[in-house]
Amino acid sequence: MTATSWLDLPADHPFGIHHLPYGIFSTATDPGRRVGVRIGDLVLDASRASISAGYAAGGVWSAPSLNPFLGQGSIAWAAGRAWLTEVLSDPAYRSVIERHLLPLDAVTLHLPIEVGDYVDYYASAHHASNVGKIFRPDSPALPVNWKHLPIGYHGRSGTVVVSGTDFHRPSGQRKGPQDPAPVFGPSVRLDIEAELGYVVGGATTMGERVSVDEAGEHVFGVVILNDWSARDIQAWEYVPLGPYLGKSFCTSISAWVTPMVALEAARIDLPREEGDPEVLPYLRGTGTGAQGSGGTAYGLDVHLQVSVNGTVVTRPDYRDMYWSPAQMLAHMTVNGASIRDGDLFGSGTISGPDKGQRGSFLELAWGGAEPFELADGSPRTYLQDGDEVVMTAWAPGPDGSRIGLGEVSGRVLPTR
Amino acid sequence: MTATSWLDLPADHPFGIHHLPYGIFSTATDPGRRVGVRIGDLVLDASRASISAGYAAGGVWSAPSLNPFLGQGSIAWAAGRAWLTEVLSDPAYRSVIERHLLPLDAVTLHLPIEVGDYVDYYASAHHASNVGKIFRPDSPALPVNWKHLPIGYHGRSGTVVVSGTDFHRPSGQRKGPQDPAPVFGPSVRLDIEAELGYVVGGATTMGERVSVDEAGEHVFGVVILNDWSARDIQAWEYVPLGPYLGKSFCTSISAWVTPMVALEAARIDLPREEGDPEVLPYLRGTGTGAQGSGGTAYGLDVHLQVSVNGTVVTRPDYRDMYWSPAQMLAHMTVNGASIRDGDLFGSGTISGPDKGQRGSFLELAWGGAEPFELADGSPRTYLQDGDEVVMTAWAPGPDGSRIGLGEVSGRVLPTR
Repeated sequence: MTATSWLDLPADHPFGIHHLPYGIFSTATDPGRRVGVRIGDLVLDASRASISAGYAAGGVWSAPSLNPFLGQGSIAWAAGRAWLTEVLSDPAYRSVIERHLLPLDAVTLHLPIEVGDYVDYYASAHHASNVGKIFRPDSPALPVNWKHLPIGYHGRSGTVVVSGTDFHRPSGQRKGPQDPAPVFGPSVRLDIEAELGYVVGGATTMGERVSVDEAGEHVFGVVILNDWSARDIQAWEYVPLGPYLGKSFCTSISAWVTPMVALEAARIDLPREEGDPEVLPYLRGTGTGAQGSGGTAYGLDVHLQVSVNGTVVTRPDYRDMYWSPAQMLAHMTVNGASIRDGDLFGSGTISGPDKGQRGSFLELAWGGAEPFELADGSPRTYLQDGDEVVMTAWAPGPDGSRIGLGEVSGRVLPTR
Repeated sequence: MTATSWLDLPADHPFGIHHLPYGIFSTATDPGRRVGVRIGDLVLDASRASISAGYAAGGVWSAPSLNPFLGQGSIAWAAGRAWLTEVLSDPAYRSVIERHLLPLDAVTLHLPIEVGDYVDYYASAHHASNVGKIFRPDSPALPVNWKHLPIGYHGRSGTVVVSGTDFHRPSGQRKGPQDPAPVFGPSVRLDIEAELGYVVGGATTMGERVSVDEAGEHVFGVVILNDWSARDIQAWEYVPLGPYLGKSFCTSISAWVTPMVALEAARIDLPREEGDPEVLPYLRGTGTGAQGSGGTAYGLDVHLQVSVNGTVVTRPDYRDMYWSPAQMLAHMTVNGASIRDGDLFGSGTISGPDKGQRGSFLELAWGGAEPFELADGSPRTYLQDGDEVVMTAWAPGPDGSRIGLGEVSGRVLPTR
């Protein structure tokens, strides 16, 4: 695609013509929620624009969430994107389209999807082995099943919120190994997890499976996801049935959903080492190597950056993730579980091999043993009340362009 | 309440005037889904009846799920029940109401709620310690946190189905301790879990908590729940993040939701023994004893029965459950997690102290070591293709009556 927009954006603008992410917005004078598409620092009112330009298929963009569009499936997604690219590239459309472009600061952004089921994975070997070393020092760093299947669990979909939503510090039970009994109070080890989240469409019925090769027809797009985590609550509750209240109080996602096709130039093989086991056939895609990497089981060259109160504290690279989104979706459905439009799954914390690439405070401060400093000199092991966390990310686009994923931000308020 | 119905039902009818459970139904000639109320072996078309009798508040019963009614909150629930009781008791209403009563076999029953988040607990000490002995023979039978908090985790809400829905045997990875690598195939240890499920309404916002005392305003009603489980898939995947594909393929609930107020005569104190720890204050309700039992933290005297292909295989008693529904809801929200109308939480497998009261095949056949027989002489350790499981339950009602919970049934189809 060599389109350029009549908007005359810089070639390296993170929201250029090759990106075109979808969101849900409203304005003060027009409070109905509807689909918007970001281009440059503007938001195209996709619903009104499609009416003005006579694009009937855009009717689905008048909905208050992306779910109806997600339900139309991958052929409609491609058609919608082709139309948007055309009207934003061909100057003939300028007069009819331009009046539906709104300044970004004139709109309010909302949660882009009505979340069906939310699943969170654990797909970074570096993160999983760091957590193993900190929480289970007497066991092997990676669980024995870890390289055979993408470990995942269901999270709380009702507390997924859009970027910019502040939340109250959670309370709960905690008990240190030396404490005689659990105590109750606000979490004292509140953490972040830097992740990507995948938005699912093209619902299936129970008993069907989505293969690795078919995953591209069901993974619509990607957001940045902050899986806020209360480590003290989690440590006491999670054996044997997994994380629950340590995670369920809030999960933040970007307002903008980047279509997967906008990340085609960012596709890479998954990292595999000598000795990694061959995965079972259902986790391999066409064109994949013996260890299940490559082809439809691709990784993504996405670069994240996490800042706390303006200080960049870590730069995780998604290229280090062991399991691909296609493998995670194939695994999710291999037991016959159906998917719904608006389902969301997270990658799990993105951590790289180096200290400056760790995607959680737990790892950055090594369980509290190695505090780090913000620019104002204040130390952190975990989050303090008032801390604001902002995650951003970019990936290579076509023709040397950049795709800048929508940021996700949130601030910790005191316990209510 | 000493109401009797003009329908002239036997005093011990499980769906008498003291019960009045809600469901969603349609008929062949009138396929719109709407709220029905079961009385005897009839279904009252609550939507049409409320229109005919001029009960405006019944407008919410024309919805295709109970969610809008759940959203109205506990005062509306009480008013709706009072109206239904009146029109089904006072003969003056007979002429206007009777034509809206349909034979049970003339209606199709649907999933009664649009499920928000689905959480499953683990509230039976007998079940948890049986599972501990079978799966973790070298560790204490009960996890150290078990008597301090109701252990729970999120399940998949998109695969919750109504009674009568058959499902395909799930496939997945399994690996026995002696196997060199995992293998893939249909589950060979497919199981049931007999549970009660609680239906939630009166949505809250993030940061709010629902106390044990307030839980009654948010727990609308109860269903029987069968948490189908693939033990081989679960055993290989569940460390460290909990059950995932071993549970997510199907969860069945009754079509009829019994209002909690219909179970007032079934309230009992929770079982507590010398040496049980005192629970933290947020898990105690008004009028509870030192160990958190009694008052608003009540148990339920509900008797379940599970049959496989017509043979009764177990009779679990809910009275043996350690944690109350009010405690489970208070725990769910103590970290500030919001609840939505249509949220569902399961009790976890109901097992009593005796072998004939165990709520899963895992326990009944003790991990496969002690097969049991059906009436036709065929042995079972786990479910075979074609097996049909039916769970029923009853509880004492007022004035010596019985409340019969709506049954939940399902059949195992071969892997697709």
